Amino acid sequence: MGRDRIDAYLEAHRGDFEEQLKELIRIPSVSAQPDHDADTRLAAQFVHDDLAAMGLNAQIIPTKRHPIVYAEWLGAKGKPTVLIYGHYDVQPPEPLEPWNSPPFEPTVRDGNLYARGATDDKGQMFTHLKAVEAWLKAEGSLPVNVKFLIEGEEEIGGANLETYVAENHAKLACDYAVISDSSQFAPGMPAITYGLKGLAYFEIHVQGANRDLHSGTYGGAVANPLNALATILASLKGPDGKIAIPGFYDAVKPLEDWERAEFKKLPFSEAEFQADLNVGELVGEAGYTTLERKWARPTCDVNGIWGGYAGAGPKTVLPCKAGAKFSFRLVPDQDPKTVEALLRKHLEAVKPPGVTVELNVSQGAPAVLVNVDSPGVHAAARAIEQGFGVKPVFIREGGSIPVVGLLKRNLNIDTLLLGWGQNDDNLHGPNEKFSLADFHRGIKSSAYLLEELARPS
Amino acid sequence: MGRDRIDAYLEAHRGDFEEQLKELIRIPSVSAQPDHDADTRLAAQFVHDDLAAMGLNAQIIPTKRHPIVYAEWLGAKGKPTVLIYGHYDVQPPEPLEPWNSPPFEPTVRDGNLYARGATDDKGQMFTHLKAVEAWLKAEGSLPVNVKFLIEGEEEIGGANLETYVAENHAKLACDYAVISDSSQFAPGMPAITYGLKGLAYFEIHVQGANRDLHSGTYGGAVANPLNALATILASLKGPDGKIAIPGFYDAVKPLEDWERAEFKKLPFSEAEFQADLNVGELVGEAGYTTLERKWARPTCDVNGIWGGYAGAGPKTVLPCKAGAKFSFRLVPDQDPKTVEALLRKHLEAVKPPGVTVELNVSQGAPAVLVNVDSPGVHAAARAIEQGFGVKPVFIREGGSIPVVGLLKRNLNIDTLLLGWGQNDDNLHGPNEKFSLADFHRGIKSSAYLLEELARPS
Repeated sequence: MGRDRIDAYLEAHRGDFEEQLKELIRIPSVSAQPDHDADTRLAAQFVHDDLAAMGLNAQIIPTKRHPIVYAEWLGAKGKPTVLIYGHYDVQPPEPLEPWNSPPFEPTVRDGNLYARGATDDKGQMFTHLKAVEAWLKAEGSLPVNVKFLIEGEEEIGGANLETYVAENHAKLACDYAVISDSSQFAPGMPAITYGLKGLAYFEIHVQGANRDLHSGTYGGAVANPLNALATILASLKGPDGKIAIPGFYDAVKPLEDWERAEFKKLPFSEAEFQADLNVGELVGEAGYTTLERKWARPTCDVNGIWGGYAGAGPKTVLPCKAGAKFSFRLVPDQDPKTVEALLRKHLEAVKPPGVTVELNVSQGAPAVLVNVDSPGVHAAARAIEQGFGVKPVFIREGGSIPVVGLLKRNLNIDTLLLGWGQNDDNLHGPNEKFSLADFHRGIKSSAYLLEELARPS
Repeated sequence: MGRDRIDAYLEAHRGDFEEQLKELIRIPSVSAQPDHDADTRLAAQFVHDDLAAMGLNAQIIPTKRHPIVYAEWLGAKGKPTVLIYGHYDVQPPEPLEPWNSPPFEPTVRDGNLYARGATDDKGQMFTHLKAVEAWLKAEGSLPVNVKFLIEGEEEIGGANLETYVAENHAKLACDYAVISDSSQFAPGMPAITYGLKGLAYFEIHVQGANRDLHSGTYGGAVANPLNALATILASLKGPDGKIAIPGFYDAVKPLEDWERAEFKKLPFSEAEFQADLNVGELVGEAGYTTLERKWARPTCDVNGIWGGYAGAGPKTVLPCKAGAKFSFRLVPDQDPKTVEALLRKHLEAVKPPGVTVELNVSQGAPAVLVNVDSPGVHAAARAIEQGFGVKPVFIREGGSIPVVGLLKRNLNIDTLLLGWGQNDDNLHGPNEKFSLADFHRGIKSSAYLLEELARPS
């Protein structure tokens, strides 16, 4: 029967799949850094060629920035259509110093593949390519119609996919969307993620005098943009861990009782979590457990800061400018535009005298909640149970996958978020990794999913 | 007579003096940056050779870091001894982008010499070398005994000069110390600076988790060292411009009535000051004029900050560490060690949970006040009046010259602070400059000073 042949194909090609993934990872397709533009094009070409080789109609769609790869196989008449989304771009690898092996030289240690993009999202995205390949090579056809939409701007909140989706409703029409760009709850505990946080990411520039000054000659008379920036950033959160922007929590949907109960059942050890990070204590909003704060409460983090002299030795400079990147993780039903407006009002109120402040929006996306009692979620649960050998748990995630909201708005579909990664995969940090065992279980579950979605209950 | 020959020598050698100063400035003797260590040695050698060539007993004294140049001429039996201090090291030139000409390529525009070190302190220090040269070349002798003490660690608060002075009381014994490392009040308004601020300079390191984290997966649960750093830095000053460290003002000596009255008489335009800096408003401690805040009230400035991602585009990282440099300008009778102790206590009180904080002292020196009614100050006033053609005004300075306190403690002498620079010379910033007219007036005043100190009233 078909499933046996699929299983046999997957088993026979484990080594090939790993080598192909490594090849893709070696392309440093950092979307945020313009000097890697050639690499993003190369990564798009790689994905395109792989999809074309297995028999899909594939195309590279140029955009103003990084290209989109689209591919389709529509031979399953009368069957549902599944849109598989992924991204071939990766976060910047910096800082480089803490990496134990070069970020773009995939290296296997203890069954894990270490590299930038190993899990986010090249490795996870690749499971779906290989699942489709298995069906087409072993069976000659797919149980459902499949459309791939692989972009190159996920890590920079690229507006170009948004435009493309908005302009191609008919082409992208589907019954289900599937994304693997998240984590299992723990090793051996695969999960279906039914909630994601949104994101509102800003860059702030503070300007004082028209030039750097001597802190002795001018100190005490001229505003210091670094002191001002500290005051502004400190004003974003109160000592209770709550975000201190007036109105910020107005639209926040409270956690439901069943969710708090489910989260409590999960085997989450605060002590282990803390020990892994080597922090003396966990922090955050009062009145919520750590999982609740991570998954379902809004947060505010400064992501980067600069200004003045950061070299060796003391320099008594009163700098003329300073800047920072900071972001809010949003929850349903917060709107990034409303958050921006509230933030601007707050900045006007807290801005110290003597400086000017410029605020730029870098990224914005609302949070997502999927109905867990739906045919697609049921099919995914069955596929994962067969691929991993255990039933998945239902979780939310602190991360943001803006495309989920985009697909909902444009195509009116919910997305199945099937994460094959682990929480300690260090995505976005140094030594990002992906378990090779999970890679193969992910491919198997993805292959089964196509069949389960063909017969939803 | 002697003074005519001195005047003639100075007039005849204006071009030579300028070329020699440019040669010294071309040596990028940045004391804070170890890759310039060869340059600091080169600058020390230059100063040594110049002093030796004019007939002084000169020596280069190695230290653990940058060498000291010492030179003496002790042929004026029965006459006072004058110790002339200066420094050949300079501040880092960074940021380089705003410079209109390369920082170590001295360039003359509109009668000003532009370069790092032009005024601070190569140009000003050099006036005394050329004054002594004029006496020795034109007259064959000096009216007083002279000792030069030229160091290479002024910009990094070098402990090595401190050790050297402490161990060489007899060698350095003198009746007056003279330093030109400050400013006139305004063009055509030379000044004797009778008060300097002290300095307490710190570097702070804030550590959160053991690695950089994804702000979605970990935000809201793990302390962010950048947010924590902002909170700490914001806590240093209140919205009234007062430093908010408990006990910080306890030792502050209030301004005397005569000083406030003298300062009010000086032609200082807040509007011009503000326009020059292009700031919308001046800021600072309530209840004091701008000059009072600049010269005689303690201040707190963040000098540099770093942490997280500062590259192009958004990066949703929750960084594991952050740091900053910040400093307090102190006034009499604040003690840097007491300030450090108060700061440490304050940090314990304000440190947010979940992070560890390390504080390092980079530099510390108490403030200085000189008695204006003394023979040395009277002699300096006469010399300046003859060299510049106008009587000097008496001012204080917001800058710190730690060596003044060092000489007071070790040799029990007050220092004559005769600044030839201007307030807009951009010392420590880009496009540092020194007026060549002031350079030559400074040489002339320095030459006259040697004679005036030989006959103090």
